[in-house]
Amino acid sequence: MIALDAMGGDYAPDEIIKGALRCVKAHRMKVALFGPQEELERRLDQLDVQWRDYPLILHDAPDIIGMGDEPVDAVKKKINSSLVKTITSVANNTSSVAISAGNSGAVMAAALFSIGRTEGIDRPALVGLLPAFQHPVVCLDLGAITDCRAENLYQWAHLGFDYAKKILGIDRPTVGLLSNGEESTKGSLITKEAFRLLQQSPLPFIGNIEPLHIIQNRADVVVTNGFTGNILLKTYEATVSFCCSFLPQDMRELILKRTALDRQSGAVLLGIKKPVLVVHGNAHADVIERALLLAQKISLQ
Amino acid sequence: MIALDAMGGDYAPDEIIKGALRCVKAHRMKVALFGPQEELERRLDQLDVQWRDYPLILHDAPDIIGMGDEPVDAVKKKINSSLVKTITSVANNTSSVAISAGNSGAVMAAALFSIGRTEGIDRPALVGLLPAFQHPVVCLDLGAITDCRAENLYQWAHLGFDYAKKILGIDRPTVGLLSNGEESTKGSLITKEAFRLLQQSPLPFIGNIEPLHIIQNRADVVVTNGFTGNILLKTYEATVSFCCSFLPQDMRELILKRTALDRQSGAVLLGIKKPVLVVHGNAHADVIERALLLAQKISLQ
Repeated sequence: MIALDAMGGDYAPDEIIKGALRCVKAHRMKVALFGPQEELERRLDQLDVQWRDYPLILHDAPDIIGMGDEPVDAVKKKINSSLVKTITSVANNTSSVAISAGNSGAVMAAALFSIGRTEGIDRPALVGLLPAFQHPVVCLDLGAITDCRAENLYQWAHLGFDYAKKILGIDRPTVGLLSNGEESTKGSLITKEAFRLLQQSPLPFIGNIEPLHIIQNRADVVVTNGFTGNILLKTYEATVSFCCSFLPQDMRELILKRTALDRQSGAVLLGIKKPVLVVHGNAHADVIERALLLAQKISLQ
Repeated sequence: MIALDAMGGDYAPDEIIKGALRCVKAHRMKVALFGPQEELERRLDQLDVQWRDYPLILHDAPDIIGMGDEPVDAVKKKINSSLVKTITSVANNTSSVAISAGNSGAVMAAALFSIGRTEGIDRPALVGLLPAFQHPVVCLDLGAITDCRAENLYQWAHLGFDYAKKILGIDRPTVGLLSNGEESTKGSLITKEAFRLLQQSPLPFIGNIEPLHIIQNRADVVVTNGFTGNILLKTYEATVSFCCSFLPQDMRELILKRTALDRQSGAVLLGIKKPVLVVHGNAHADVIERALLLAQKISLQ
């Protein structure tokens, strides 16, 4: 069973519901949808009167956590929100994976409170795959923790290393530290300290790397803080869109295919005991469908 | 007279010398070249035996500051380096603008020591133009200060505002704060504090903006710290290259033209009393030529 927050994201609940419907119909996937029950039923009736025939379960969650809500406060106060209830259903083993396109800070806070941290990891990180020439590169943190310490970067390098082994199937993935120059003297105070920690670690650390090195596959894993990682990912996406806007339709499709933006599904929150998928707030039904398929894949591992 | 560091960058001194030669020949621009005099003369003789006929002056600077040198140390110790002597020639009014493709941290340190800060500005910032749909966007800091305070971001917003008025010719340019989400609750501790300062300022502050909003021209000026700004710029460049690699020659040229990467020349160090141009380390002769032309434009203002 995959738990899905019906009220998270810019196009909730309609696009979330549509994505869920596609999965339960086409793939017979078991999905638990969290949101205001009556509203969800009304929308589902409009979309497909036969929805009750599919493995789709509704759970009433009348409250909503908005994108602008302060994460920790919202999670503590809105215990009947779709977001909190989605995460809780994984914490109490009712579902195997949770998905939300809502307030990513709140998703993280809820995951920390109800699921709890992996041993040895002080703070979680959002991990995703960035397209590159030879194979995708594991990048973290993509936005979970905006203010981090060198020890967090060090721990995330280990999380990324383990994730790359599993997802990319590489025996000893190399790890790079995102910086404003490849020389060891480049970086912020925090990345310089993380550099020293990583040099002393058993990981195959290759040093500082720049954005161009990521797409050149100089490392299999790239570690950075959540603020810069988020800007990295969104700048990549924005620049692909910018380039595509000047191209004819066939070239645009080629670029979207090669840069794999059409296959985006979500980032996985690492460093907590159970898997949680965080989906971009502007997710339409196709992204939700892919997120559900990724969640199913993760839950089968 | 434009002062040019002949030994800065990955392809120094040959590509720097070639760029300078083109400018003094084609545009009759006065250029002062700093580096080990004998080596420069030997290379110039190889490139063009008639170089002494052009308005090109050599200044002996035997030391070299490398890309990996610790900036402040290097500037203090290597007072006879090409980098320090280039900057000093602007400080003592021998030249009007300085250009270096060398260690950008060292360029900044030398500029601070010998030229000095603009009143009211605690730390300088590198400013550049990022291409966008309607017109280029003024972005800073692109890599001068990797660790900054909220007050620095606030001061840079003013520098960017003044620069945009002059360069973009906009009466009251709008200012955005780069963040990992457009909601006012998003950001690092430092950007949140800067947000509050900017809200209380007389600037036309539009709030947090994300990378996609930059190319959509939601703001005329974008402010961020030097670490993230550097990643933003380099991710933009890397992604354009990545997209171009999948395109046929004609489409590639179209993209390079529209994204204006073919017109790059350098970033300007703001917050010091005289203009200094910092050029990307991988600059070839064409980039040096454009940097010299930009320097001439700035010196005429």
